[in-house]
Amino acid sequence: MRATTIHAPGDIRLEERPVPSITEPTQAVVRVVAGCVCGSDLWPYRGENPIDAGSTIGHECVGVIEEVGKDVRDFRPGDFVIVPFVHCDNTCPHCVAGMTSACVHQGFTASGQAEYSLVHQADGSLIKTDGMPDDSLIPSLLTLSDVMATGWHAAVAAGVQPGSTAVVVGDGAVGLCGVLAAAELGAERVVAMSRHEPRQKIAERFGATHVVAERGEEGEQRVLDLTDGVGADAVLECVGTDGAIKTAFKVARPGSTVGFVGVPHGVELPVRRMFQRNVGLAGGIAPVRTYLPDLLDRVLEGRIEPGLVFDLTLPLDDVAEAYRAMDERRAIKVMLRP
Amino acid sequence: MRATTIHAPGDIRLEERPVPSITEPTQAVVRVVAGCVCGSDLWPYRGENPIDAGSTIGHECVGVIEEVGKDVRDFRPGDFVIVPFVHCDNTCPHCVAGMTSACVHQGFTASGQAEYSLVHQADGSLIKTDGMPDDSLIPSLLTLSDVMATGWHAAVAAGVQPGSTAVVVGDGAVGLCGVLAAAELGAERVVAMSRHEPRQKIAERFGATHVVAERGEEGEQRVLDLTDGVGADAVLECVGTDGAIKTAFKVARPGSTVGFVGVPHGVELPVRRMFQRNVGLAGGIAPVRTYLPDLLDRVLEGRIEPGLVFDLTLPLDDVAEAYRAMDERRAIKVMLRP
Repeated sequence: MRATTIHAPGDIRLEERPVPSITEPTQAVVRVVAGCVCGSDLWPYRGENPIDAGSTIGHECVGVIEEVGKDVRDFRPGDFVIVPFVHCDNTCPHCVAGMTSACVHQGFTASGQAEYSLVHQADGSLIKTDGMPDDSLIPSLLTLSDVMATGWHAAVAAGVQPGSTAVVVGDGAVGLCGVLAAAELGAERVVAMSRHEPRQKIAERFGATHVVAERGEEGEQRVLDLTDGVGADAVLECVGTDGAIKTAFKVARPGSTVGFVGVPHGVELPVRRMFQRNVGLAGGIAPVRTYLPDLLDRVLEGRIEPGLVFDLTLPLDDVAEAYRAMDERRAIKVMLRP
Repeated sequence: MRATTIHAPGDIRLEERPVPSITEPTQAVVRVVAGCVCGSDLWPYRGENPIDAGSTIGHECVGVIEEVGKDVRDFRPGDFVIVPFVHCDNTCPHCVAGMTSACVHQGFTASGQAEYSLVHQADGSLIKTDGMPDDSLIPSLLTLSDVMATGWHAAVAAGVQPGSTAVVVGDGAVGLCGVLAAAELGAERVVAMSRHEPRQKIAERFGATHVVAERGEEGEQRVLDLTDGVGADAVLECVGTDGAIKTAFKVARPGSTVGFVGVPHGVELPVRRMFQRNVGLAGGIAPVRTYLPDLLDRVLEGRIEPGLVFDLTLPLDDVAEAYRAMDERRAIKVMLRP
């Protein structure tokens, strides 16, 4: 099959790799209908994460079941499924408590930017649609494998309540999905911190009531002014850098929580400020499977259209260009069709 | 008046100082009936915090109103009051949201180990009893000015739920009050991490169902074994050192929260572990006034007796010995009577 591989910073290739084969009876192989590039894929692409040269990359996809292991009961070849990037058995104590991303049988999608992908714990991880969805739904369904569920997790972790003021730090695809999540969860005011006009427009379409284009101290002051100096009731940190985290804590009101979902890189948490102002931190790797049934309903009922984060679609053959477009911020998020 | 002062690490003196005078119409002066030494007083005593040589020290007390400013309406001379160590107007947005320790008119008790103490924002901060309480109640009432409210905050911040398993890291007076709080909030299992037999006994009296005497990795493994490898539903961090924080995160189950109330000293939060396991952090300076009405009811109804943390009572004149006894761990917490 054709699969995306990474060899060095900036070196993304489409290469031939064997179709994944089932080695455990709980696994399934999915033929990828659509995959995409994640902001976190840019960390190794930019040389910020170590690279295992020649390994496949890409962890978001939707597709059609090709083959299932003998213990898989709920899925059969031909089913259209959403593949959470983190796999789980959905029965262990962590899963039962809703923390499916910490499953004792945790696994990850390893070839989402490819023709086929292997799913561990298929019964626990996957969710299917009734029949093949309309092609117009594919972008939104694809976001449920990671980015929309991750934005949702930021809002849940931050404790967004109806009527509250939520601030979203970061205008990448996760941040935009965080805006959508905060609005869906009933925030009365959703402040998107975003410098880029195309992203501001999507943020507003997703429910942002205010856009703050300034960054650093100036942006923080804008948010404080908007809240009469009190600070936000909930803050979604959707970047993962030290600067974004510091801004998140600066704009959070005492007693509130920063929900963080950006993989932390070089972050030093401001522990004394957190203590003095009673601002908590919650979040982490999104328990995608936990949120999937609810999010799927919202998409199928047309209440949310998170697929709008895809502003570029390319054939899988052009995956290297997909990375370049995102790295150079020419695209918010790129969908790939094999 | 006689007041406790600190001049250098280990140098605690009882000296003559002017009785505090009212400079704002919202203030009150309290004649101290009982004060005490806090674990956090030991930080400067041990040279871990900077010292303003000759300044008064001590922030916990109960007493009788001596004088009130002209804007104080709810209190009058002769009222017996509990003085939260952090003062608040109880009307600002932070106070209304329950985060009284972040009040825009925040103030602190500065001479709790003395004959008199000044209270800022008396109407917002204080709470009084009906008449003079029996002397047997003084220790428990005194704990409400800080240590019991702080242990309570740890349990609330950690999200202790009925039927849950809570772990308390630290067996100082705050940790012991955290045990009591977790039990009162309905935890089915309360694990006290404590090496010292007298403290273990109080922990058990306060509701600890398990005591783990081991520290470090061994202690962490004991807690994990107790929870079938899952980890605790809620963890109360009541020390403030890096080691205690690390232990707290090691024993917390995915999706849970570490409630921290020990003033952080040299703490580096394990941000990647927090992210990978979705373990949050909440807490900080306890909003004492917020909890006071409820805690006072519990004490007056005899449901809790947090005053048991005082295992030594000394006259104020012996304050230097009080510090030595706590520093050398000969006493858990020392009450001082002027």
